[in-house]
Amino acid sequence: MRVGVIGLGKMGKPMTRNLLKAGFTVVVHNRSRGPVDELAREGAVAAWSPAEVAQQADVVVTSLPTPASVEEVYLGEHGLIGAARSGQVLIDTSTVSPGLSRRLYEAAKERGAGFLDAPVSGGPAGAESATLTIMVGGDAEVVEQAMPVFQALGKNIHHVGPSGAGSVVKLVNQLLVAINMAGVAEAIVFGVKAGADPQVLLDVIKTSFGGSRMLERALPLVMERQFQPGTPVNLILKDLGLIHEVGKELDTRLLLGALAQEVFKEARAAGFGEEDMVALFKPVERLAGVEVRGHGTRTA
Amino acid sequence: MRVGVIGLGKMGKPMTRNLLKAGFTVVVHNRSRGPVDELAREGAVAAWSPAEVAQQADVVVTSLPTPASVEEVYLGEHGLIGAARSGQVLIDTSTVSPGLSRRLYEAAKERGAGFLDAPVSGGPAGAESATLTIMVGGDAEVVEQAMPVFQALGKNIHHVGPSGAGSVVKLVNQLLVAINMAGVAEAIVFGVKAGADPQVLLDVIKTSFGGSRMLERALPLVMERQFQPGTPVNLILKDLGLIHEVGKELDTRLLLGALAQEVFKEARAAGFGEEDMVALFKPVERLAGVEVRGHGTRTA
Amino acid sequence: MRVGVIGLGKMGKPMTRNLLKAGFTVVVHNRSRGPVDELAREGAVAAWSPAEVAQQADVVVTSLPTPASVEEVYLGEHGLIGAARSGQVLIDTSTVSPGLSRRLYEAAKERGAGFLDAPVSGGPAGAESATLTIMVGGDAEVVEQAMPVFQALGKNIHHVGPSGAGSVVKLVNQLLVAINMAGVAEAIVFGVKAGADPQVLLDVIKTSFGGSRMLERALPLVMERQFQPGTPVNLILKDLGLIHEVGKELDTRLLLGALAQEVFKEARAAGFGEEDMVALFKPVERLAGVEVRGHGTRTA
Amino acid sequence: MRVGVIGLGKMGKPMTRNLLKAGFTVVVHNRSRGPVDELAREGAVAAWSPAEVAQQADVVVTSLPTPASVEEVYLGEHGLIGAARSGQVLIDTSTVSPGLSRRLYEAAKERGAGFLDAPVSGGPAGAESATLTIMVGGDAEVVEQAMPVFQALGKNIHHVGPSGAGSVVKLVNQLLVAINMAGVAEAIVFGVKAGADPQVLLDVIKTSFGGSRMLERALPLVMERQFQPGTPVNLILKDLGLIHEVGKELDTRLLLGALAQEVFKEARAAGFGEEDMVALFKPVERLAGVEVRGHGTRTA
Repeated sequence: MRVGVIGLGKMGKPMTRNLLKAGFTVVVHNRSRGPVDELAREGAVAAWSPAEVAQQADVVVTSLPTPASVEEVYLGEHGLIGAARSGQVLIDTSTVSPGLSRRLYEAAKERGAGFLDAPVSGGPAGAESATLTIMVGGDAEVVEQAMPVFQALGKNIHHVGPSGAGSVVKLVNQLLVAINMAGVAEAIVFGVKAGADPQVLLDVIKTSFGGSRMLERALPLVMERQFQPGTPVNLILKDLGLIHEVGKELDTRLLLGALAQEVFKEARAAGFGEEDMVALFKPVERLAGVEVRGHGTRTA
Repeated sequence: MRVGVIGLGKMGKPMTRNLLKAGFTVVVHNRSRGPVDELAREGAVAAWSPAEVAQQADVVVTSLPTPASVEEVYLGEHGLIGAARSGQVLIDTSTVSPGLSRRLYEAAKERGAGFLDAPVSGGPAGAESATLTIMVGGDAEVVEQAMPVFQALGKNIHHVGPSGAGSVVKLVNQLLVAINMAGVAEAIVFGVKAGADPQVLLDVIKTSFGGSRMLERALPLVMERQFQPGTPVNLILKDLGLIHEVGKELDTRLLLGALAQEVFKEARAAGFGEEDMVALFKPVERLAGVEVRGHGTRTA
Repeated sequence: MRVGVIGLGKMGKPMTRNLLKAGFTVVVHNRSRGPVDELAREGAVAAWSPAEVAQQADVVVTSLPTPASVEEVYLGEHGLIGAARSGQVLIDTSTVSPGLSRRLYEAAKERGAGFLDAPVSGGPAGAESATLTIMVGGDAEVVEQAMPVFQALGKNIHHVGPSGAGSVVKLVNQLLVAINMAGVAEAIVFGVKAGADPQVLLDVIKTSFGGSRMLERALPLVMERQFQPGTPVNLILKDLGLIHEVGKELDTRLLLGALAQEVFKEARAAGFGEEDMVALFKPVERLAGVEVRGHGTRTA
Repeated sequence: MRVGVIGLGKMGKPMTRNLLKAGFTVVVHNRSRGPVDELAREGAVAAWSPAEVAQQADVVVTSLPTPASVEEVYLGEHGLIGAARSGQVLIDTSTVSPGLSRRLYEAAKERGAGFLDAPVSGGPAGAESATLTIMVGGDAEVVEQAMPVFQALGKNIHHVGPSGAGSVVKLVNQLLVAINMAGVAEAIVFGVKAGADPQVLLDVIKTSFGGSRMLERALPLVMERQFQPGTPVNLILKDLGLIHEVGKELDTRLLLGALAQEVFKEARAAGFGEEDMVALFKPVERLAGVEVRGHGTRTA
């Protein structure tokens, strides 16, 4: 099976390497030339346009930064859809609105091709270690067909429903990430200002009903004052923008989501847009006049 | 060792039974007479006032509904403090402000007695099964002295710091419970309105970064439309009132906390105050025109 | 007619002077002795307790800082109610909950006395110039009886309904003050960061649908960087605390009110609690990296 | 002087009639043909494209529903810019982002033409009676040149600064409209639930510091249960969308603005999108279980 990869950024590059490692022939394309040449030296086949990738590959995987770039790669001149053919599978791992996912599904269908929305969770680290969680929306037989490719890229592969469902599940997850993260910053700073030891808060709350994945991820990083980007503030803001657009279409109220977005914007305005989202702690700490630092737990 | 228990409600009654089971002589008191008689028939010793409990017991455990009732039992006429003596240990398991905890600590100290703030998590079910999580603030040697009593009541006993620290940790936990719960209701209704299957949302997100204890607790209950009180909306509202009072004293901002409080108030206004906090879903569902119900997972 | 005044602070002192000026015999009492002596030198009669005031006056006006001090003065030992008599009128100009107003009304009624809740708007400046707006709740014939006193104190006297209604109207006004003020800070900083001249924003918007009394009050002060206390941040926070308590009893949602409260708390946490509420601009400006200053209007 | 008008909707149609009334020759264009024919029968000259309007008119006024339609009319095929010439003035009265206004200004400048962003306030009623408030951004001499046209359309013409400033001032006004409106609904329902008479609230508060243009506009309509569209919920939502986009670019926090947007979305979700924005009261009333209706004022 020949696999195409379009978009060779922090996610697409390690995905390509894992596909090569798994024995696939991989055809790659990227807007700028550098990463194409780099991966060609590692055994990939270079292509000059999305259309050219489509001509050479049985399954094409896209990993792109914005909905606009997804539209361009699929529907633009020399795009994937124009060159798609019957039996081919196109997989978009970018985070986009379910509406766009469904439009691409329909467009692919008209050409006889299959389309899957398959956003991922796990970040660059998960992409490198091939342990991504993948949320797939689309037709069951197409998911089946693409399974060997998914298995080379990730560990938890969920077929979550028809076309668009992958994008929905991803957005719900990101909305909870944003709310829980903003909540953790607010609650932990409250507790530390009230005199609690952050390590104790972590130890006790992680097994209580206030526990969450964001608490367990954020608190150790903040206590060590580690703000290097794993998942930057700006990335969550991009997803929140998408969530609110979908929320507007659906007419669903997003009260905590709206406030979380403003708290993330506050962190960006304070200059932390490119830091990891745990940098959300910093404006809250500054306001409260405390700092959350690790210093020996006292849990019995 | 003779143990006193004051406040024989949904928590204090099963706590008394567990203490009897563990072999302690238990002296009990309650504002209304019924539960005292009931437990006397099961082997407890009845007392007519907090002071009388203090006179007969080495360790006294209080479990009371409001900060006002805690003040009354400790500092009122025939209260615990007036009758407290050197070497005795007083333990308050109620949820109160750290300021009140510290005042009681100081008052007990003047009488030579020890005081521990020891709020619990786990609800009536945890009290019955003696699996409560207990967050203890106070002096280490006093915690040591009380340990046999704690071990009869709960499973995870955390000495979280000096006097007041137990109350702080409990409030931080409750703040996260409220925010995460309100976030879950908002995000899941968003997802279901966008076409996702709630069971799939649960399966995928619980192992992703959006996961939380509240997600895992709430979603199965809502899908089965189970709103019987485990932890009622009104109880969380009581704790949120306390959290905001403390936040005002500390001058810490509680943005998501403030919004979560309004969302809980919204649920109470809609008539769900005595239902479990998962009833928070109902006003959000009504607004969105969808209902979150279980119907077969489609996870691959 | 003999008029009593209890509470000789920033409001009560000028009110006393206006009553003296209007020709009333005025009996005064205050917790601390200084202001009593000061006003005695200006012609008032000193009294040693609220009860003593009640014994000597036909109409008693109270102006007190907190609901607790109102309860103390009316219902405490040597309080007003205990000494009240048939035909007498008690007027509370403090800002309290309608529930407390109604309790005092009932207590006075049992003694045959009339009670009016009559909170005021206009601040110390309005008290001095006798131009206060007064919102009176209570029985029409009692309002009639008290009218000469009201006319010595203020300009717009509104009988707004039965007992408690004065307090309700005052709280609604304060809630709008808080929301509109927080909105003005947010919107004007947004506009100035986007390049607009604040004087132009004021000139144009004050006659458009975005106009409000708070816009017209705040913007000139901020442009001149005048933050001396007229109405301090802490005073609005006190009223917001009361509003949220009443909101909890009524089960009404206060979304924007909850957020406005947090924004005021943010200003207090930043050290501006004793400055005028226009100091709300300062944390918002700091975050946005702009300052709202006057510099020549460009309105055509 | 020959004046062009493009966009013959609820605003553009009455604007055209006022220009005819003022004696101008008016060249009109609209995407759909109906309104063009209608106005041609009243004396206007029909044109087939924006470019054709530009060829025949000295001053061109556009009044369009969305930023996308503004871009199309100015920069699209047969658009205004392509046909613009030295000395000509293009005036956009639509509500768009200041960034788009500035782009059009630059594009016009390259052709030697002037461009003014001139959003209006006053709605269809103001357009008909030629009493619009107009906020003009752009070069002073171009504003001078266009003044006779503005004077035929509105009453308060403000030159508020350089290119883009008109759009900024309009957005700040709309942000305050949204926040104040949401605040009024929340505060008045709170007051009515607490027992106040809405007419009394209006009478007293409109002259107090809680007063605002939105209070004075909204309360009489709600008391008469008049929800016919003057300014529909959906229109404010469109403007709020624009405001949040600009806020994201500027990195300014919009806390109350974010919440107001969700409250407006709540009203739309409840089915009131096409009703006047005072319909915001309806979901709040429903939640509180009260209705704000007029019934005899009791103001003294």
